[in-house]
Amino acid sequence: MKLYSFWRSLASFRVRIALKLKRRDFDVVSTDLLAGDQFKSDFNLINPQAMVPSLVLDDGSILYQSMALLEYLDEVYPDPPLMPQNAMARARVRALCMMAVADIHPLVVPRVRKYMTDKVGLDEAALNQWIENWTNLGLAAMEAHIEQNNPDGIYCEGDTVSLADLCLIPQVGAAQMFGFDVSHYPHLSRIFETCMSHPEFFDSRPQVQPDYPEELNGR
Amino acid sequence: MKLYSFWRSLASFRVRIALKLKRRDFDVVSTDLLAGDQFKSDFNLINPQAMVPSLVLDDGSILYQSMALLEYLDEVYPDPPLMPQNAMARARVRALCMMAVADIHPLVVPRVRKYMTDKVGLDEAALNQWIENWTNLGLAAMEAHIEQNNPDGIYCEGDTVSLADLCLIPQVGAAQMFGFDVSHYPHLSRIFETCMSHPEFFDSRPQVQPDYPEELNGR
Repeated sequence: MKLYSFWRSLASFRVRIALKLKRRDFDVVSTDLLAGDQFKSDFNLINPQAMVPSLVLDDGSILYQSMALLEYLDEVYPDPPLMPQNAMARARVRALCMMAVADIHPLVVPRVRKYMTDKVGLDEAALNQWIENWTNLGLAAMEAHIEQNNPDGIYCEGDTVSLADLCLIPQVGAAQMFGFDVSHYPHLSRIFETCMSHPEFFDSRPQVQPDYPEELNGR
Repeated sequence: MKLYSFWRSLASFRVRIALKLKRRDFDVVSTDLLAGDQFKSDFNLINPQAMVPSLVLDDGSILYQSMALLEYLDEVYPDPPLMPQNAMARARVRALCMMAVADIHPLVVPRVRKYMTDKVGLDEAALNQWIENWTNLGLAAMEAHIEQNNPDGIYCEGDTVSLADLCLIPQVGAAQMFGFDVSHYPHLSRIFETCMSHPEFFDSRPQVQPDYPEELNGR
């Protein structure tokens, strides 16, 4: 399998964790979203939205949209399961996924940041405020959900890693990269620490990707 | 079941269609997002994100996040199925869902429009441009996906209604309400017409909701 990925893409980060947890071999094809690789003409076939990730299966079929990918990988490679057996529990997992995938992430992706600076004219401080606003709203909702539904669990839902953790961890990592304080989210901070103790999460971080920029090392 | 809904909420629209297709009885509890009902103190228990929809089951359990709700309803009430049998086809359906649910909708919801006018200072024309930009990008991606994967099908995926149609239709309806021209998306326009010929879609429209404002009638 080939994963079209970018070091700082949170959606690619989610899928890297899933592929590692499912013990899949995959090659990473770096797609530099900041340099505009996604707008090159032949990339249209890989991803019609000019986004990453895209996963190219061994038969050449191409899948995109990280949530669709995560659910696909869990269905086709059921071991270890990343969704609970119970329908209500699955709904809770998917609700958490959506808080990250639909309510935080789409507001802070490169194309939106670019619109904000180039078309709306936001300066760096105002852009950072925008990013912090949606990040905090979403993380606070995830924290509240876990406090209400699973305050004593190890992970987002119960004591087992689920797709919710795969969506949460990149978002918390990004919040830290942006310099936001996540310590007032005790459940999220605790789950982040726990997940990062697993190599499948730790080795999927932006900072250890082959395309991570040298000049950022040590930051 | 009780559905906390708002006439112009696209996420509520999706769930209304699902409940009707699954032949579920449900009461609509109107939550006026423009008047701020979602910020009243007791609403926090219904939806910790101050959003709609929330679905209250007969045993009192509360579900939120429309995608989580749609998947739940399809799992618990499998007839008629709203997801294909094949895993690749399911991935295509979920990819289309995410184009609407994650890539268009979160950028045009009330809280983002409010931030844009109140904090960023966009005027009405610039706000409309913002809404049109993300709506068009997302609809174009859905059109391209269908052209590539299912050009001769009746619905978004094959010849059967799926969750992708439940996510597409409200978005096309909203584009029309905003006055955007959707005629250059032939697949989407055709699927919209077909779906709207079914009462489950037609009777879930914003315009026929009990809380639709009288002064908008005839517009």
